[in-house]
Amino acid sequence: MKDLVSSCPIEDAMRMLSGRWPTLLLYYLQDGTKRFSDLRRDNPTVSHRMLSLELRKLEAAGIVTRTEHGDYPRHVDYALTAAGRQLVPLIDALGDWWEATAGERDGAVQKGEAA
Amino acid sequence: MKDLVSSCPIEDAMRMLSGRWPTLLLYYLQDGTKRFSDLRRDNPTVSHRMLSLELRKLEAAGIVTRTEHGDYPRHVDYALTAAGRQLVPLIDALGDWWEATAGERDGAVQKGEAA
Repeated sequence: MKDLVSSCPIEDAMRMLSGRWPTLLLYYLQDGTKRFSDLRRDNPTVSHRMLSLELRKLEAAGIVTRTEHGDYPRHVDYALTAAGRQLVPLIDALGDWWEATAGERDGAVQKGEAA
Repeated sequence: MKDLVSSCPIEDAMRMLSGRWPTLLLYYLQDGTKRFSDLRRDNPTVSHRMLSLELRKLEAAGIVTRTEHGDYPRHVDYALTAAGRQLVPLIDALGDWWEATAGERDGAVQKGEAA
C-alpha cells in the first residue's frame, strides 16, 4: 500500500521498525526459519495476538515470509526474505552505535545539565 | 536513566528513534545548528509542545545539545552531538535499504499472497 502523505524512505522504514517487536523478531529469525510457537517461546512476554499482528506487519512490508504446512500436525513457518536478511546488519550497526557512544552521550547530557 | 528491564542496545536505540520525529529532526539538524523556530518551520505539522518533548528526548539520549543564548532577543539553539552526527549515516543506510529493496519486497508480498 502506498502512503500518499509521506514519500520519505527513512520515515517509511522507521515506521515499519518502530516499537519493541520488529527488531526483536528480526533478531530471532536471523538464524533461519521458525515456527510461530518458537517465536512465542523466544518472546515470552508477547501475547499471541500481538505476535501475530507484528508478524503480519513484517510480512506486509516484505521482510518476512509466512508458509503454511498442511501436513499433520498443521503448522506455520516464518523466515526472513532476502530484503529482511539485508536489514539485519543495518540494525546491528544501530545497536553497535548505541553501545559505542554510551560514554560520550552520557557526557554530553551531563555537560548540558551543568550549563 | 538506566532501564533495568532491558539491556539490549538495539532495543534501546530503536526506542529512542521510534516515532516520526527523531529521524526527521536528525535530518534537519545534520547541516548544523538550528533555532527552535527554524525546526518548527522545517516541520510545520509538529506542535510546539511535541517538538519540545521530542527535542528533550534526543537531548536526554545525548544526541542533541541545547544551548540557551541570553542575549536579546533571547533564543535557544539545537545541534547534533558527535554521537548524533555518527548516527546520521546509519539512518541514511536504512532509508537506502528501504528504497533499494522496494521491488523485491513488493514481489515477496505478492508471492506470499498467491501461495
